[in-house]
Amino acid sequence: MLTIRRRLTPITALGAGWMDKTRFETFSDGVFAVAITLLALNLVVAGPGHGSLAHQLTDRWPSFAAYVVSFFVIGVLWVNHHSLFRQVARVDRGLLYANLCLLLFVVVIPFITSTFADYLRAGGQDARVAAVLYALVMEGMGLSFTLMFAYVVRAGLLVEPLSPDASRAAILRFGVGAGAYLVAIVVAFVWPPLVLVIAGMITAYYIVERVPTEPVPGPADGPGPGGAAD
Amino acid sequence: MLTIRRRLTPITALGAGWMDKTRFETFSDGVFAVAITLLALNLVVAGPGHGSLAHQLTDRWPSFAAYVVSFFVIGVLWVNHHSLFRQVARVDRGLLYANLCLLLFVVVIPFITSTFADYLRAGGQDARVAAVLYALVMEGMGLSFTLMFAYVVRAGLLVEPLSPDASRAAILRFGVGAGAYLVAIVVAFVWPPLVLVIAGMITAYYIVERVPTEPVPGPADGPGPGGAAD
Amino acid sequence: MLTIRRRLTPITALGAGWMDKTRFETFSDGVFAVAITLLALNLVVAGPGHGSLAHQLTDRWPSFAAYVVSFFVIGVLWVNHHSLFRQVARVDRGLLYANLCLLLFVVVIPFITSTFADYLRAGGQDARVAAVLYALVMEGMGLSFTLMFAYVVRAGLLVEPLSPDASRAAILRFGVGAGAYLVAIVVAFVWPPLVLVIAGMITAYYIVERVPTEPVPGPADGPGPGGAAD
Amino acid sequence: MLTIRRRLTPITALGAGWMDKTRFETFSDGVFAVAITLLALNLVVAGPGHGSLAHQLTDRWPSFAAYVVSFFVIGVLWVNHHSLFRQVARVDRGLLYANLCLLLFVVVIPFITSTFADYLRAGGQDARVAAVLYALVMEGMGLSFTLMFAYVVRAGLLVEPLSPDASRAAILRFGVGAGAYLVAIVVAFVWPPLVLVIAGMITAYYIVERVPTEPVPGPADGPGPGGAAD
Repeated sequence: MLTIRRRLTPITALGAGWMDKTRFETFSDGVFAVAITLLALNLVVAGPGHGSLAHQLTDRWPSFAAYVVSFFVIGVLWVNHHSLFRQVARVDRGLLYANLCLLLFVVVIPFITSTFADYLRAGGQDARVAAVLYALVMEGMGLSFTLMFAYVVRAGLLVEPLSPDASRAAILRFGVGAGAYLVAIVVAFVWPPLVLVIAGMITAYYIVERVPTEPVPGPADGPGPGGAAD
Repeated sequence: MLTIRRRLTPITALGAGWMDKTRFETFSDGVFAVAITLLALNLVVAGPGHGSLAHQLTDRWPSFAAYVVSFFVIGVLWVNHHSLFRQVARVDRGLLYANLCLLLFVVVIPFITSTFADYLRAGGQDARVAAVLYALVMEGMGLSFTLMFAYVVRAGLLVEPLSPDASRAAILRFGVGAGAYLVAIVVAFVWPPLVLVIAGMITAYYIVERVPTEPVPGPADGPGPGGAAD
Repeated sequence: MLTIRRRLTPITALGAGWMDKTRFETFSDGVFAVAITLLALNLVVAGPGHGSLAHQLTDRWPSFAAYVVSFFVIGVLWVNHHSLFRQVARVDRGLLYANLCLLLFVVVIPFITSTFADYLRAGGQDARVAAVLYALVMEGMGLSFTLMFAYVVRAGLLVEPLSPDASRAAILRFGVGAGAYLVAIVVAFVWPPLVLVIAGMITAYYIVERVPTEPVPGPADGPGPGGAAD
Repeated sequence: MLTIRRRLTPITALGAGWMDKTRFETFSDGVFAVAITLLALNLVVAGPGHGSLAHQLTDRWPSFAAYVVSFFVIGVLWVNHHSLFRQVARVDRGLLYANLCLLLFVVVIPFITSTFADYLRAGGQDARVAAVLYALVMEGMGLSFTLMFAYVVRAGLLVEPLSPDASRAAILRFGVGAGAYLVAIVVAFVWPPLVLVIAGMITAYYIVERVPTEPVPGPADGPGPGGAAD
């Protein structure tokens, strides 16, 4: 009865307040996958009879540039979400709601991407408004990820807990992106296309700078770093 | 042959009538994830040449408000679906169909959300009709979740069954939302925007009020509350 | 090293030709979940300024009726897909392609549903063409499911193989739906709305008539029907 | 505490740099499933009042042909992705990014499919541009899959590593598709519809030609080819 035992274990051993990490990840992965794929719905041309296709495609370069940047924004966020939750031992109800707040911003990325691209071509005051909207959603996304990360660290949900100093440093270091998007909001008022460049650079930063949860050797309730688990 | 053994176990040990809980959850999570992401497809502006973007965005505030409310309606429903099924030991064919009825309502939420938001701006009789439609689908969702919950409790599918008294109390307490949406249907005829506020309040209620399946100590067929399972 | 061992097992123990059943199911569940949710994208009203909302909603009753029927067509197909694969021990490459053929039809259901609903309102010759298109896709779906079922039975992929007689009877009994959709194709030429009723009836038939793979006691390579697997 | 132990194992036994293969697959499968289903969103007719439905359907044959070809392009790519990762023992961060590059091309397939189909009907210079665009994305997809395959082989991530000769041969043999799409790019300038035929033929090639990772007997760190793993 291995299957039934495995189902029972989390509930009785962890207590009724703990959630199922696998389902949490399946749902999150689903939202990430749908949002990243819906980005491409914005790539539409007007069809035959609206000027040459070559002209339409070159004229719509902001849509393609914005598609690539937003694709990697969501993709790299998913990689970091994945990295973080590999090191999370338990998921509680608070974490589910923190994650929902993050997804609230992820889900609007296709909308702000297409709006930004459309108004970037138009230029003027509207391009500035669209760039601010784009940077604001990125800021919301960065902030909610940082808050979720802080929640995980503070609530002791990590497999191998961080020391207070290490956790403060980790949260600060990870929060750099949320700070950088504040700069993007200001830049949006000055030169809108630069917002896309900044978003690309912050994304590249998160390819290099990982979720900072390096294991700290010590008496965790799992096996030690060098121990075999089987 | 661990893998084959694990595949065989559910069929031979549980009997051919039992379904695979993991696949049931994967499919449900997929529908929840797609529906919650499609909500944002309603967030569209008319594009350059249809008035200033800032004006369009402020004019479309009902779309943004309705997006946030419906996002949390689906998100919190997912959290409760997740909580409930963590405590379900077995899934039978009847439960699959009860779940399909719930999803029938979940899937139309993007449609009713955009319709409600569009007609809320227009006002008049149509706003009332749209609000009634929104409240009716919420009622259908609440009722089908309550019925599914009752089915699970009555059919003895819980890991740790409830006593008759506890199950009656649990179903009543959980059904409060379905009752509250009846009020929303009446309110829809009087002042449509209030329906969105009520939906938000009921959702907040379900953040606090969880699926009421507190384990009852007793001779269940799993290990006792304090027992180790490995 | 439990994790690595579990990863290695399928490949070395089953041979390189066998596929991963879990991933096969995750992909299929994803397609089913997206297709069933996209059905609701057809539920759109023209928005303020195109007649009263109440009138638009009643005028568009075929869209709502077709939504409900197609929702259960996909939902019940998923239940049967799920039932069948619970009893499948191994997935080979041929089965992946047979499944792709089934999904080819599932994926177009949102398109044929909206086309059927739109032209049903219009009536005339076009309604007949739309009804034939709808019935043809249902026929394709039914046939490819029956062929996939036959493939599973003949290739000996079931956990507990059927006797030749039982498998012939099972395939015939299960193929009833594919036969009934042939009737629907003829009916489409006579009275289009009836096609929706027939599709609903065939779906109800598949709620009652399950995938006919009742275990046959005998020397399978799994534990016997009454044996414990752990 | 089987569950907690299983969570801890990958991190402590594999080191913090290794990723969770299951989540990687769930996310990829989600993107494949959404992209393959969105293909059918391009199958729209203009609705009542735009000529007879039968005429619209026959007039739009390129949309249906392109749907079928692109469906199998994505489907067969998924089968090969699945085959490859069954033989991958570990997923590192580099592989996640290589996979994101592949998905960048997969996600735009619905867009290029509908653009190609629309302009194929229109003909002329635009049909050539659309065919080149289609072939270019296919080339990008083929190249990024081949690069990802080479990365897996070179970084020693396979369950049973290939010898240098075998890996060179395997990468070359697998890269044939990427070469063939180069031909398709040239053909696109001459006779656009042929690009669809070539894409279909390359897809058929990949149904026959599998990911070439036949196990090489030798001292791998898993059990030998004939060994039992449990």
